[in-house]
Amino acid sequence: MLQSFNARTQEPFGAALAPTTAAELEAAIQAADHAFDTWQASDGNTRAKLLNALAEAIEYDREKLVELADAETGLGPVRLNGELDRTAFQLRRFATLAQNGGAFAFTDDPAVAGGPPVGHPHMMRVRVPLGPVAMFSASNFPFAFSVLGGDTASALAAGCSVVVKAHSGHLHTSQRVFEQAQHAIEKLGMPKGLLQMVQGAGNDVGVNLIKHPRIAAGAFTGSTRGGAALRDAARARVRPIPFYGELGSINPVVATPAALKVGGDALVQTLAGSITLGCGQFCTNPGLLVLQRSAESTEFVNHLVEALKTQKPHAMLTKAMRQSLDHGTAAQLAAGAKALLHNPVNDINPNPYLAEVDAKTFMAQHALQEEVFGPATLIVWTDSVDETLDVLHTVGGTLTVTLWGAEQESADTHRLVRGATAIAGRVLFAGVPTGVAVTAAQQHGGPWPSSTEPMTTSVGDAAVDRFLRPVCLQDMPAWLYKRQGQPC
Amino acid sequence: MLQSFNARTQEPFGAALAPTTAAELEAAIQAADHAFDTWQASDGNTRAKLLNALAEAIEYDREKLVELADAETGLGPVRLNGELDRTAFQLRRFATLAQNGGAFAFTDDPAVAGGPPVGHPHMMRVRVPLGPVAMFSASNFPFAFSVLGGDTASALAAGCSVVVKAHSGHLHTSQRVFEQAQHAIEKLGMPKGLLQMVQGAGNDVGVNLIKHPRIAAGAFTGSTRGGAALRDAARARVRPIPFYGELGSINPVVATPAALKVGGDALVQTLAGSITLGCGQFCTNPGLLVLQRSAESTEFVNHLVEALKTQKPHAMLTKAMRQSLDHGTAAQLAAGAKALLHNPVNDINPNPYLAEVDAKTFMAQHALQEEVFGPATLIVWTDSVDETLDVLHTVGGTLTVTLWGAEQESADTHRLVRGATAIAGRVLFAGVPTGVAVTAAQQHGGPWPSSTEPMTTSVGDAAVDRFLRPVCLQDMPAWLYKRQGQPC
Repeated sequence: MLQSFNARTQEPFGAALAPTTAAELEAAIQAADHAFDTWQASDGNTRAKLLNALAEAIEYDREKLVELADAETGLGPVRLNGELDRTAFQLRRFATLAQNGGAFAFTDDPAVAGGPPVGHPHMMRVRVPLGPVAMFSASNFPFAFSVLGGDTASALAAGCSVVVKAHSGHLHTSQRVFEQAQHAIEKLGMPKGLLQMVQGAGNDVGVNLIKHPRIAAGAFTGSTRGGAALRDAARARVRPIPFYGELGSINPVVATPAALKVGGDALVQTLAGSITLGCGQFCTNPGLLVLQRSAESTEFVNHLVEALKTQKPHAMLTKAMRQSLDHGTAAQLAAGAKALLHNPVNDINPNPYLAEVDAKTFMAQHALQEEVFGPATLIVWTDSVDETLDVLHTVGGTLTVTLWGAEQESADTHRLVRGATAIAGRVLFAGVPTGVAVTAAQQHGGPWPSSTEPMTTSVGDAAVDRFLRPVCLQDMPAWLYKRQGQPC
Repeated sequence: MLQSFNARTQEPFGAALAPTTAAELEAAIQAADHAFDTWQASDGNTRAKLLNALAEAIEYDREKLVELADAETGLGPVRLNGELDRTAFQLRRFATLAQNGGAFAFTDDPAVAGGPPVGHPHMMRVRVPLGPVAMFSASNFPFAFSVLGGDTASALAAGCSVVVKAHSGHLHTSQRVFEQAQHAIEKLGMPKGLLQMVQGAGNDVGVNLIKHPRIAAGAFTGSTRGGAALRDAARARVRPIPFYGELGSINPVVATPAALKVGGDALVQTLAGSITLGCGQFCTNPGLLVLQRSAESTEFVNHLVEALKTQKPHAMLTKAMRQSLDHGTAAQLAAGAKALLHNPVNDINPNPYLAEVDAKTFMAQHALQEEVFGPATLIVWTDSVDETLDVLHTVGGTLTVTLWGAEQESADTHRLVRGATAIAGRVLFAGVPTGVAVTAAQQHGGPWPSSTEPMTTSVGDAAVDRFLRPVCLQDMPAWLYKRQGQPC
């Protein structure tokens, strides 16, 4: 049986739930496959109707959902209400995208008379939905990256059905969201197979889900280790499928001494807030602070230590994550980092952690380059812009890089921008990396290990592209042409 | 040493060439990496200047290039002149694309005031070139999928430098194209590292090339086996890179009895020509003919046998490929196919081969589902549209499906179009799959095993997308904004 826990007290929460059996998994996938049959040919208005109804459904049940999520995750009602708003916003945004034709865009290439290479027949490039998508929920976003999160919303907008694997960290929240979704789908008279949900551990459910021949793609938010295992299973299939994993990331913040001086205490407070926000349990948590040795940098760090001391992070999502945090900080210290703020405590609520290391040690020690999930940041001291660039190159892949102090064009800022874009999906020139806006221009996904598919994004409008494969229709008949690139 | 051969006589052709040494490979990659440094920041006009000069260079040397390629591949001057035209056309098309801003497209998302989820900072989604690309030439297109082929042209247009691995089947042609390209680059005063070339077998060169830390992507056209090995090496790197492999494909042609009747002898001749064109050595060669049992189908097949008898395919590209053809047809016959036309001959010029099998045997025997490279086609007899769809589903992944007889909208044509789009990158409703137009709407790449990355294309304008990774710039400074999404 699967038992949920109260994040704050670690007491069992709610009834134990039965893991999905092999027969139930098969039935869920068959239902999703059957629903895909008609959904892949649905028009934008139909897709919008569903997505809008799902947004309404969670808003309508807000009170109970936030209560459940708060108990299971300890993230607090303010954050969770905000996350629910974001989730509804995202569902509606993909509704609008479907309605505006975003999933049906096509390139029409009229016939050109004559032989090759100039002449060619009539060709139209359309995009066809992949098929049922296996969606793996995240621990740290019980709404926005879970049952009705961005992966589900973008897959439904693309014309795919979805089988969600619920996260063990918030089973009752997932169950309630799923029930609300099922009611909404039923009320619209749409097939329940459009959204299915399964739960259970490891091979029994997750791996068998991604390996199932009827599953056409995977979407995942979570650890590098878990994501890599599922990615490998997706690739090892007789018919490999795309697997969109959004994994670990250390999100370097690079700051010039001048920028730190100008930013002053406001910047200190902003960064301290970002490090401890949600107990540091964000993919975009700033885990690395790359500073050039200088009086300004030293002063900033001293103030940062003071600011972090006053922060009291809330409980972590699970006991296992709480233990991982301790292991991660211990590994950093063992690898040569020096603690600036380190008050270990045997409690689900951790204390913020800050450590420092010189660039050469950072670059030599793999253990220092790994994500530590939680309110923990490592300062890397560099002696030059060259060394800062070497540090970024060593990081290799990250969701974000933040550059403070690139306001003026110069040879150095050119190089820093290039060094940052070379390894990140998003580069910020102000503010902090936490907070991932759901917009047309968002890119949430960078080179490995931050993503398994860095050419794609898991947040923002382009997330829908992950579930649409281009197909060229050559010399298509008139009846098909009239459908204007809609799949058959 | 590497020895080239005359394709028709199998005699050694030209001087033996030295394989690239480890030191030379390193130097080539370093030069490409160095050239990338400036090229990634070049503007569209500069890229167009290079691409246009490369087109001119091969046109200027046409006579000698066609002579060399004809000796090494046996493809004949008509085809090779046409292929050279196509290659120059393709280079110019990517020049125009670069000039028109295709590689610099961006999404600008102005700031929206207020808190999340509606409010957000200014965000711009740009695309950054990946880095030096390892490009693996094809045997069957000594110009269009080789040194200055579509992969090279699209990578250069994207702002990447290229290290070409020459194909052993046309070493002297490759060498000559490379020299012409080097002259053109030199005349423009651009860095020679923009295009480098290496040659040699297996691990010594190809695998070491794709594994090199400075290489940022791979592009490949060739066998499923060779492509899979390089793809695995690209994925096993500490920092995995995208590998765009265009591999084997059996390209089913599905025809209704009515369409065969209407098409008559013209259709018979067209198909026979497509099966034997270029000695069947095309990725899009129609290797499978899916027919519903009927008098019309039987008559069509009888005529097809007669038409193929009159075809005299030219020499195959290499002795190894000629042997593979015999192995492939023998494997089909051993797996239950019945020969309709099979005159084995111990000669580099093969005879066309046609065989038939019922759908159930086809679906049960994996050997029947594999590509046989050369002028060989297997007819699969089905009893119903349902069975035809099952056959397509069994094929699983292919560059093309051709549907003859889908002119009228009906439940069956809907199902056939869907069955075809589900497994193919391109669906044709008239004509034959050989001949891949270089257009905006082209999609050359389908589900595995026809491509390692079916969401991308190796031919047509969208080929450039393979080498550009999206990055979101948040709150970018004015000086960077003025560059309008161009990388730094």
